[in-house]
Amino acid sequence: MSNIPKIVILGAGYGGILTALRLQKELNYNEADVTLVNKHDYHYITTHLHMPAAGTDNPENARVNISKLIDEFKIDFVKSTVVQIRPQDRKVILEDGTLSYDYLVIGLGGEPETFGIPGLGDYAMNIRSINSVRLIREHIEYQFARYKREPHRTDYLTFVVGGAGFTGIEFVGELSDRLPQLCKQFDVDPTLVKLYNIEAAPTALPGFDPELVEYAMDVLTKKGVTFRIGTAIKECKPDGVVVGEGEEIKSATVIWTGGIRGNRLIEEAGFETMRGRVKIDEHLRVPGMDNVYVLGDNSLVFGPEGRPYPPTAQIAMQQGVTCAHNLVASIRNQPLKGFEFSNKGTVASLGKGEAIGIAFGKKYKGRSAAWLKKMIDLRYLFIIGGIPLVLRKGKFF
Amino acid sequence: MSNIPKIVILGAGYGGILTALRLQKELNYNEADVTLVNKHDYHYITTHLHMPAAGTDNPENARVNISKLIDEFKIDFVKSTVVQIRPQDRKVILEDGTLSYDYLVIGLGGEPETFGIPGLGDYAMNIRSINSVRLIREHIEYQFARYKREPHRTDYLTFVVGGAGFTGIEFVGELSDRLPQLCKQFDVDPTLVKLYNIEAAPTALPGFDPELVEYAMDVLTKKGVTFRIGTAIKECKPDGVVVGEGEEIKSATVIWTGGIRGNRLIEEAGFETMRGRVKIDEHLRVPGMDNVYVLGDNSLVFGPEGRPYPPTAQIAMQQGVTCAHNLVASIRNQPLKGFEFSNKGTVASLGKGEAIGIAFGKKYKGRSAAWLKKMIDLRYLFIIGGIPLVLRKGKFF
Repeated sequence: MSNIPKIVILGAGYGGILTALRLQKELNYNEADVTLVNKHDYHYITTHLHMPAAGTDNPENARVNISKLIDEFKIDFVKSTVVQIRPQDRKVILEDGTLSYDYLVIGLGGEPETFGIPGLGDYAMNIRSINSVRLIREHIEYQFARYKREPHRTDYLTFVVGGAGFTGIEFVGELSDRLPQLCKQFDVDPTLVKLYNIEAAPTALPGFDPELVEYAMDVLTKKGVTFRIGTAIKECKPDGVVVGEGEEIKSATVIWTGGIRGNRLIEEAGFETMRGRVKIDEHLRVPGMDNVYVLGDNSLVFGPEGRPYPPTAQIAMQQGVTCAHNLVASIRNQPLKGFEFSNKGTVASLGKGEAIGIAFGKKYKGRSAAWLKKMIDLRYLFIIGGIPLVLRKGKFF
Repeated sequence: MSNIPKIVILGAGYGGILTALRLQKELNYNEADVTLVNKHDYHYITTHLHMPAAGTDNPENARVNISKLIDEFKIDFVKSTVVQIRPQDRKVILEDGTLSYDYLVIGLGGEPETFGIPGLGDYAMNIRSINSVRLIREHIEYQFARYKREPHRTDYLTFVVGGAGFTGIEFVGELSDRLPQLCKQFDVDPTLVKLYNIEAAPTALPGFDPELVEYAMDVLTKKGVTFRIGTAIKECKPDGVVVGEGEEIKSATVIWTGGIRGNRLIEEAGFETMRGRVKIDEHLRVPGMDNVYVLGDNSLVFGPEGRPYPPTAQIAMQQGVTCAHNLVASIRNQPLKGFEFSNKGTVASLGKGEAIGIAFGKKYKGRSAAWLKKMIDLRYLFIIGGIPLVLRKGKFF
């Protein structure tokens, strides 16, 4: 057995892939064994999933083969699903094997938070992965085909999006572009199609600049979205949702974007959690464990005002960079770096050519914000895959 | 009120559209008022529907706007659905109105014949119209998307085609080309996909040349089709079919191509029928009525050996030509022509680049038969729409 320390990275999302890419760059030959574990042999660009979900882009453009990103001479890749994390044994149980580690990086991604609303887990779809967005896209198209055979079933043409956070707003933006295309393709009268966006909070995009939120709602309302803000979904049924004081909205399609909680594997590993997330230390580690890092959706990082940052691609990527630095430092017995989130801004797309955003402290809306969104997407492709990936996937953005 | 005779044509299928085209050419100005009634504002090429149903071609390539085919200065077009035919009153009741006629041409097309098999009407889909093939295509794609989210549900990947007549064989030919593409698109292991073609008769393509039938079954078996010939479907359920002596095949997709019967409107009109069809006289008229013509699926024409011809596009087109001739002759008090079917041959496609057929008394198979099939399709486009239509739609064949 070698004495080289073993680093195991669980999940090739934003945090995991950035950690792997940085380790591959910074580690010297034979300084550590790095293994990346992921359910699929591809990484997907979660911030882009609202487009293939609506059908306005091909799912292929939202994923990158991991073999194109990592150097398999430097990092081992294992395609498998994690079943259990055993920090006391320094082991990870996979669906088809076991891995031992000296250092563990958990970047597994979260799960939909249903807040205990009955039926949401059973009857609503989620924008979470390549497979889940394929399902949504096919499901929506299928409803148009079904409607043409059963023209009394207008519920086939009613689409309910639960949650008006970033994912919800970006998805209805795309869907409001897509639905008229589907009407044309299937010869359906567009006035029969209904698209609801339902949000329990008193505003869409809670926490975002109110002027930009108003602009977004204006744009989307003109594109045919019916907003029900300050309205809670009480129940999700096979044939629709119950909202507010018992009102039923009949719909064959409910997509829930209302929130993300930590992965159940985190709780099952015995870590202390808040809504499934670990309140990590300043070095991104599980409190009391100097060899287990948690990134992204499963980590809880508090800002200077004492409020947790929302889990975004941006924060996960920055965590990945710090995590890789700290792993290398640990191995070399050098001091670790504290993590500090540097908010570069946020842009939400509202469909083709429309967006809102804040970047470098300035507000943007319309075409300029949409352009900014494109630049952010291209920058990400550049970070993970360099110029070749920008050229291969970037043209589609 | 004018004294010009009124001709009403019900249905813009092969028979109806050919009648209309010929009347438009042969009638002099003010010799007759011609009205064509159709459910949709387009004609569809039924013999091409197996391709969009499987998803190997766009449904747009299987339809032509009626306004591109008929001259609306010469023929009135009414987009409506026929509700009732009242020969005693010389009226046709439409969903949104009534039409009187002096001469009636019934080219309404048939209905699926389910032979009383329980559940077929409720749970099986049929290849019958643009809307029905859109449903089939979307349904099949949707099963792949569903499977990726519920990988234990291999019934989502099992496809059952009932009937190995022309439609059934041509459809499984296309589907066996399409399924591997879908496997690739959705990252599904192709060995999990099953495609059954089930036929109660002791052979596929009953009545066709046995050597060519064997060739077809070889080709399709190599492409992954599992034939169950001489096996009856006993019941169709929401989750599959029961065949033979009670064996269940679990499948979320059953497509029934097992037969066509006459339209219920024909029986309801009080005409004497055999399996919903009218045994028309030699001039294509309902026996005892000199002003009602029946074409295509609703007509029964016996060949010299005393057996009825199967309802095909070819016979319906020839009927349309004779029908138009006889209508003009009636108006001009000239003698009518007897109808005689001239069989130019038959070609069945087996997917891309493969077909079998008999034409001009010779057998064809493989590429030459596939080429023949293309020529037949192009010839039809030329007949109904001339060179412009061949150029517009033909390139896709």
